[in-house]
Amino acid sequence: MPPWKHKLHEIIYEADTPAGKIFDIAILIVIIISVALVMMESVTPLLVKYAWEFYIAEWIITAIFTIEYILRIVVINKPKRYIFSFYGIVDLLSTLPSYIGFIFGGANLLFAIRALRLLRIFRILKVTRYIGESRKLMLALRNSKAKILVFLFAVLIICIIAGTLMYLVEGQESGFENIPLSIYWCIVTLTTVGFGDIAPITPLGRFIASVIMITGYGIIAVPTGIVSAEFSKSAEKSLNNTQVCPNCNESKHLDDAEFCHNCGYKLNA
Amino acid sequence: MPPWKHKLHEIIYEADTPAGKIFDIAILIVIIISVALVMMESVTPLLVKYAWEFYIAEWIITAIFTIEYILRIVVINKPKRYIFSFYGIVDLLSTLPSYIGFIFGGANLLFAIRALRLLRIFRILKVTRYIGESRKLMLALRNSKAKILVFLFAVLIICIIAGTLMYLVEGQESGFENIPLSIYWCIVTLTTVGFGDIAPITPLGRFIASVIMITGYGIIAVPTGIVSAEFSKSAEKSLNNTQVCPNCNESKHLDDAEFCHNCGYKLNA
Amino acid sequence: MPPWKHKLHEIIYEADTPAGKIFDIAILIVIIISVALVMMESVTPLLVKYAWEFYIAEWIITAIFTIEYILRIVVINKPKRYIFSFYGIVDLLSTLPSYIGFIFGGANLLFAIRALRLLRIFRILKVTRYIGESRKLMLALRNSKAKILVFLFAVLIICIIAGTLMYLVEGQESGFENIPLSIYWCIVTLTTVGFGDIAPITPLGRFIASVIMITGYGIIAVPTGIVSAEFSKSAEKSLNNTQVCPNCNESKHLDDAEFCHNCGYKLNA
Amino acid sequence: MPPWKHKLHEIIYEADTPAGKIFDIAILIVIIISVALVMMESVTPLLVKYAWEFYIAEWIITAIFTIEYILRIVVINKPKRYIFSFYGIVDLLSTLPSYIGFIFGGANLLFAIRALRLLRIFRILKVTRYIGESRKLMLALRNSKAKILVFLFAVLIICIIAGTLMYLVEGQESGFENIPLSIYWCIVTLTTVGFGDIAPITPLGRFIASVIMITGYGIIAVPTGIVSAEFSKSAEKSLNNTQVCPNCNESKHLDDAEFCHNCGYKLNA
Repeated sequence: MPPWKHKLHEIIYEADTPAGKIFDIAILIVIIISVALVMMESVTPLLVKYAWEFYIAEWIITAIFTIEYILRIVVINKPKRYIFSFYGIVDLLSTLPSYIGFIFGGANLLFAIRALRLLRIFRILKVTRYIGESRKLMLALRNSKAKILVFLFAVLIICIIAGTLMYLVEGQESGFENIPLSIYWCIVTLTTVGFGDIAPITPLGRFIASVIMITGYGIIAVPTGIVSAEFSKSAEKSLNNTQVCPNCNESKHLDDAEFCHNCGYKLNA
Repeated sequence: MPPWKHKLHEIIYEADTPAGKIFDIAILIVIIISVALVMMESVTPLLVKYAWEFYIAEWIITAIFTIEYILRIVVINKPKRYIFSFYGIVDLLSTLPSYIGFIFGGANLLFAIRALRLLRIFRILKVTRYIGESRKLMLALRNSKAKILVFLFAVLIICIIAGTLMYLVEGQESGFENIPLSIYWCIVTLTTVGFGDIAPITPLGRFIASVIMITGYGIIAVPTGIVSAEFSKSAEKSLNNTQVCPNCNESKHLDDAEFCHNCGYKLNA
Repeated sequence: MPPWKHKLHEIIYEADTPAGKIFDIAILIVIIISVALVMMESVTPLLVKYAWEFYIAEWIITAIFTIEYILRIVVINKPKRYIFSFYGIVDLLSTLPSYIGFIFGGANLLFAIRALRLLRIFRILKVTRYIGESRKLMLALRNSKAKILVFLFAVLIICIIAGTLMYLVEGQESGFENIPLSIYWCIVTLTTVGFGDIAPITPLGRFIASVIMITGYGIIAVPTGIVSAEFSKSAEKSLNNTQVCPNCNESKHLDDAEFCHNCGYKLNA
Repeated sequence: MPPWKHKLHEIIYEADTPAGKIFDIAILIVIIISVALVMMESVTPLLVKYAWEFYIAEWIITAIFTIEYILRIVVINKPKRYIFSFYGIVDLLSTLPSYIGFIFGGANLLFAIRALRLLRIFRILKVTRYIGESRKLMLALRNSKAKILVFLFAVLIICIIAGTLMYLVEGQESGFENIPLSIYWCIVTLTTVGFGDIAPITPLGRFIASVIMITGYGIIAVPTGIVSAEFSKSAEKSLNNTQVCPNCNESKHLDDAEFCHNCGYKLNA
């Protein structure tokens, strides 16, 4: 790997050097502007008034992301691994929609894909001091995954049975038009959201609704209890290292690591 | 018990052998398809369009469940125990509605009973690794049962008194037509669901509503605190054995059990 | 105190003897019937149809409560203490409304007072095994009272300031007609109830609403955390003694107490 | 500092002497009356009927606050430090709006500023025994700040992506007019507020909404778990001293402090 590639790798993939930090912050700002533009474009009066400005801005951002994407491929030793990694695909999807939209005159659906640019923010946030905290959060959530899945499954079963019941009791004239819709209503009610677009009107339906609501109000204690217990247990040590192996793109190295624990490549030589 | 019965018992009631696992997964899929069909049948446009297909599918599923039900009775030593057990009744109710509907031309109410097929899912899920987690959840909930009942009772008393008050303050012109309806509204409000189909319009009524809401927002801490405390205490050992005694249908055997701890019958001989 | 008075005192005020238990359960049933009647009377169609039956039932219940009230005064050594105690006043208010309604032809407002009969239920529930649990709950809540008050005060301040802000931002045409109403809306929103009868329609108003909602969603953790911490600490011993001093009406005696710790009167001699 | 100044400083800035306590309570009452007046003025019928009374009351309150503000400047050694402190600015903003409104005939916007008078309440509440509790609350919140920020950031990202998705799925005819509005709706839904002014009507939209609701219902466990864990850890010692240095306005002195730990000035000499 020639020194310039190594240098660029350090800037693009890591955040331990001042240049690396500046690069990350610059990309962060471009991402935020880009997502803000996607949002504003969806507001019809704004789109009508500033159609040209949006068009220009979109192409500038696409150009920046395209250059960054090419650089990321060039400076890494195993480009395939990057290209087919999660962030590689997200990076590609950050640029493609604009080109496709240009060629096929495509439209609305490309919005969604461009909003995915937001996901790129997570890679950059790896550098912040909050990453240690978020790892603790993720760890606590992952450890309670089995319990939470069991809980969500139970919630779903309750909603299916209660939804069928409400469909039978309230019927179509109250807005409970079919079982899937009744189940949707049960989820709205059990989770204490309560839109009110559909609401029971028969006494029996209201009684069942009350039972569902009190159940939902009571069992919210379950996920809370699970996660609380996990947090008490969760280890306190934080992992803040931002090193990334220039060879295999592996992160999560120990602070005093000199070689990549994944491929043996020398780190920061 | 002849060997073929023993073999079938192992397949139908247990999940330690490959055949037993395949049987369970197959039944699981049929249950899910069956419940999905019940849901889709309730959507009028779908029912009108695919009436014939629904009719055929319903009979195929009923046939499968009927065969399974008969097999379950045949291969067990004490059929009465199975027939009058919780799952035995659920299994029967999974097949009966179709026959009754055929004979009496019955209709809507049979939906509810067919949705109960979903309960059958729990027996099959006994085989998964999640069962240990769900037992822990159930244990924590059971241990806090007395506390949770006291809490729900207090919630009910608050709702009855506040509901009567709101009925007096708001009256019929605001939609608080009678005390039971006002109590229903209080439950909707205290549990923070808030449909909005009924809402106070007088200043005093809104003040009382605020007190109810803040109460509901504050006391949700109580069940959460109860369950959190339980989870911290709850034992960590998991019970994942799926063995079922072919003689007495007892489950919950130790991993290295060779004889049923209930009737002494040889397990998995 | 003559023996018959002592005997009656034991039946009426305590629940350690079979007769005392039967008395309590009988009164409990009368209370529940009475409250159910109050509720049903508020449903206009029912009231129109069964006006006469309601009238009769009301007088029977009033008679029972009046007799009970007189007996409670007769069998106790210090009637004044009972009469001016919390339950003494509740007992009086359980009978008075019917008499006043009879004399003055009064109406709606007396409903509320009759619903207070429900409070009598708490004295009777003292006998159940759930009372130990509810004391633990009350203790945990009482210990966290100061913290919960500070929290509720903070919630109120947030609602007043955010409510004023919403009034200025949204104004009268969005339904935020005045500051008290805006504060009411903030409470509805912060507590995640969300009726939807009033909702912001300007972009800025919706932004502020989002901040309020996320705040409410986040700070619900505070009371929960407080109570959870209390529950972990709360003592495990239960106090289930139902003895009541026949002289001074003091409860909460130790299981092996022979004399009232309040007045020195011999208990259960 | 002459003795009268010292005496006044003790009354105005501290609450350890009876005169200081009376002064604080008096100001507290004026603040509450003042905020109540601001609220009532916003109710049009009241404003029309009592315009003159409101006008008089407003000027009396402004006069009291002006005198208090001048006194606070006079009795302190370093007035600049007070004037540019948080409470100094709040105190100024408590009086200015009335004068500006008088000169420029200003109106609505000055309401908001006058409502800020409420903030003055916090300085006075420093004297109560609840301050120790609220410091514990603040400490627990501050310690979990990083975790809570990560959580809120994750919530925001979920809302942005889910909002964009809902905009694409539901479209403008369902009320999801643009992406910012869809994100607002997602926040309303995820936090389980659920106004119901906008609600999905397509099956796919309702399915996504269900996922958002269950997510919101589940992840509320995260902040709760964080704060619960903090509360268990949080130190138990309370800091209730209300001494304020007459020289440098520093608070938070130890109970037995004789000199200001900040400037060495003799306290309460």
